[in-house]
Amino acid sequence: MKIDCLQYANWSEKIFRQMREGGLDGVHVTICYHENFRDTVLNIEKWNRWFETYPELICHARSAEDLRRAKADGRTGIIFGFQNCSPIEDDIGLVEICHTLGARFMQLSYNNQSLLATGCYEAEDPGITRMGRQVIKEMNRVGLVVDMSHSAERSTLEAIEISERPIAITHANPAFWHAARRNKSDAVLAALAESGGMLGLSLYPHHLKDKSDCSLESFARMAADLAERYGVGFFGIGSDLCQDQPDSVVEWMRVGRWSKEIDYGEGSASDAGFPPQPDWFTDNRDFPNLARGLAEVGFNDQEVAQIMGENWLNFYQASFGPKEA
Amino acid sequence: MKIDCLQYANWSEKIFRQMREGGLDGVHVTICYHENFRDTVLNIEKWNRWFETYPELICHARSAEDLRRAKADGRTGIIFGFQNCSPIEDDIGLVEICHTLGARFMQLSYNNQSLLATGCYEAEDPGITRMGRQVIKEMNRVGLVVDMSHSAERSTLEAIEISERPIAITHANPAFWHAARRNKSDAVLAALAESGGMLGLSLYPHHLKDKSDCSLESFARMAADLAERYGVGFFGIGSDLCQDQPDSVVEWMRVGRWSKEIDYGEGSASDAGFPPQPDWFTDNRDFPNLARGLAEVGFNDQEVAQIMGENWLNFYQASFGPKEA
Repeated sequence: MKIDCLQYANWSEKIFRQMREGGLDGVHVTICYHENFRDTVLNIEKWNRWFETYPELICHARSAEDLRRAKADGRTGIIFGFQNCSPIEDDIGLVEICHTLGARFMQLSYNNQSLLATGCYEAEDPGITRMGRQVIKEMNRVGLVVDMSHSAERSTLEAIEISERPIAITHANPAFWHAARRNKSDAVLAALAESGGMLGLSLYPHHLKDKSDCSLESFARMAADLAERYGVGFFGIGSDLCQDQPDSVVEWMRVGRWSKEIDYGEGSASDAGFPPQPDWFTDNRDFPNLARGLAEVGFNDQEVAQIMGENWLNFYQASFGPKEA
Repeated sequence: MKIDCLQYANWSEKIFRQMREGGLDGVHVTICYHENFRDTVLNIEKWNRWFETYPELICHARSAEDLRRAKADGRTGIIFGFQNCSPIEDDIGLVEICHTLGARFMQLSYNNQSLLATGCYEAEDPGITRMGRQVIKEMNRVGLVVDMSHSAERSTLEAIEISERPIAITHANPAFWHAARRNKSDAVLAALAESGGMLGLSLYPHHLKDKSDCSLESFARMAADLAERYGVGFFGIGSDLCQDQPDSVVEWMRVGRWSKEIDYGEGSASDAGFPPQPDWFTDNRDFPNLARGLAEVGFNDQEVAQIMGENWLNFYQASFGPKEA
């Protein structure tokens, strides 16, 4: 079972075929960054059209069981997730509605302060809000996983503490390897691991040591360090691959409709667009390179299988259904 | 299996308990009359709260199998339906979204002209529209049943013709018994029966011969006439019970936001509110009276069981899932 727990590509038949070539049984796709409920539904409608048009390549996956069936059928199961809480607006009842529509991950904040939590670019982080506490409880009840990839430190630690089910950081790397704003501190990694949470290792160049020049060996050694500190069951892949996206999309991610001024996020005025991917991970066909890199730094076959998908599958199995009474 | 294929009550714990007392295993509830998509979702959110609050009395039913499970658990399965196409706005992608959220019936029009079809109070009926033809096809694909209860004659006949799966008229009576605007002509009944469609017999007084004074025997004899003409497998109950609703609600049904002037629908200025129910069918506990009345005019036990729910169950079994390839 091979799973990538975060992508936001410019979806097309070409990419769906490349997912099959790359051996991906499951991909967690981002449905929204700044969209409200109605606009999020429009994005889901687009996926429904793709499922109808390419039934031999992809299918909607709502559970670990759906992914096993997708694998058996030779298709890639698509899991929906939100990188922001904008789809639930100020309405806690939309948590269950979004879960019914297929959402299985929701970030409590995306870079900025949200109604629920603080994003990693804010100067101050007052932690989980009043509504945030209620929404975490509701997400726990229905089986919508809390994702803190783009959230600030205190909010993230509080989310791990408040949530009664393990949470995820679907796409980020350890700050001990590369100290980027989006990468995670030892304190966060330790609390996440201890609570049964999961980390998805990112291949987005701004999250990599040496960015676009990062070597596969460096990436794999980081994974080995992580396994030594927190165990091999604690992490998988969340590549953050934005295949075929024009640079206008990274601007939408960063600025949405919240600012009239440009914000460069992890980039800069001279490096404003999507950074080039390292040559060993440029599209969905390169997924097997990661397995090779992991093996080369000493992970055995079973450990490679865990990191490449089995860990996420087990997490999905435990997380995507209603909370047991 | 006892099913009422249309109610719009002022839902409460009292009514849910009365459904259990009345022996109802399934009830098709109206989710909206004039609401757009977002407001329809708010109404579904209310149901989610009721399901969470009263799990020993009710549960959400999306299939015939869900109803069998509800019956085994001693609960009433609630099936969602729309009395208008307003929830899909002008967006065909919302058909599948609404089905995913649980909708299993949708009227193509409610009294007035809609984007899809004509309502029974319009002076002219130009038939199914361009969008209507597309939406019927999409409803057929996903398993959302076309309901023409409040539609005009030509539109109804065309819907029966165009739909590749049997349609329903969930709540209306034969015009041969009581010639009301909402009751259905022999032409419609014959086409509906021949195509494998279903009729739900209404207990709403404006649809009854002698209205509030209608006798149980008269109602049951109408059912016997219907069975003689079209067979006992063609119909069930769709009571249109509006238990505990204030008269402001019948005004909302009739006028919505489409008119600044009052419209009395099947009532009149001197009879503007909800008419009193006949004394043998006043609330959900009176469902067994219908079975008794049917038996008294000569239906045998199996026929009574068919009319009281088995016919609807079979129709749901064939209708609520995706169209087979």
